[in-house]
Amino acid sequence: MDFETLALTRQSDRAYDRTRPVEPEKLDKILRIALTAPSACNAQPYKIIVVQDEKLINEVADCTSAKALGMNHFTKQAPVHLVIVEEPGNLTSSIGSVIKDKHFPWIDIGIVASYICLAAREEGLGTCILGWFQEERLKKALGVPKNRRILLDITLGYSTQPLREKKRKPFEKVVTTNKY
Amino acid sequence: MDFETLALTRQSDRAYDRTRPVEPEKLDKILRIALTAPSACNAQPYKIIVVQDEKLINEVADCTSAKALGMNHFTKQAPVHLVIVEEPGNLTSSIGSVIKDKHFPWIDIGIVASYICLAAREEGLGTCILGWFQEERLKKALGVPKNRRILLDITLGYSTQPLREKKRKPFEKVVTTNKY
Repeated sequence: MDFETLALTRQSDRAYDRTRPVEPEKLDKILRIALTAPSACNAQPYKIIVVQDEKLINEVADCTSAKALGMNHFTKQAPVHLVIVEEPGNLTSSIGSVIKDKHFPWIDIGIVASYICLAAREEGLGTCILGWFQEERLKKALGVPKNRRILLDITLGYSTQPLREKKRKPFEKVVTTNKY
Repeated sequence: MDFETLALTRQSDRAYDRTRPVEPEKLDKILRIALTAPSACNAQPYKIIVVQDEKLINEVADCTSAKALGMNHFTKQAPVHLVIVEEPGNLTSSIGSVIKDKHFPWIDIGIVASYICLAAREEGLGTCILGWFQEERLKKALGVPKNRRILLDITLGYSTQPLREKKRKPFEKVVTTNKY
């Protein structure tokens, strides 16, 4: 499908078909495409942990949901979680981050996350990007070293949610002159 | 084109056809699609300044290139610059950023930048994402308030560069078990 259709039909899916696994070849393709994403100085400052084991998914889901708040219970349903860990950038991007006071790896992780979601959409799969979770507990569950950050968890699976209309007001975000 | 082709053929273009402007309807389409990008709590914490005026492009290009280092001289050639300014998020995303010690707007800006580049590619246009520039000088040139940050400048135009092979080693970035 063309990019406009892809962008318009990609949504945050918060309900998945538990009975339908993600085909390995689709998962491979999504990851392969995602990692063509650009990054500052081509540093690709991340690793992606693919979680498919049922027991581990339950542990990840416990870290990303909050019983008390009734938040994100759908994370247990997703047959795949893609957990994005921040890794050190290369020398030039790290120097750039310090000199320019911008943490380029976080921008780069936003870019790769969007590639994952769009590549998944092309394969008929739904995704939801989660940034709110118990990070230290999740690091322990996944064996991620203490000196790393887990930035995002992306749920992946066949969505059972109907397509929603996008609630965005695009052009108020665009300034077409230099009068900010 | 399908997303795989789009991702594989999108590259950082550092040479543009000065004589070929970007059609207004293409620019509108790119911005409209870009702003369907997801963001934490749907905050869309950014504004996009569209720079097309020749005098202003020269000023922007002076901020993004470095004569001494021979860096980024191509920025003068691009007929359009899309400058992404960080704006305050909404209440929930701001609380989330503080509690979880993650600056969600930077991730969100990565996502919207990738949508811009991919939408442009679909229209046959080239882009380059720049994060290294004289931010204070650029803010002054564009009338951006002092209390804002300019995160990225994206050059947009018809590229004169041939397609390059991607130098990525994707699968070393993927960890398929829980043994990090």
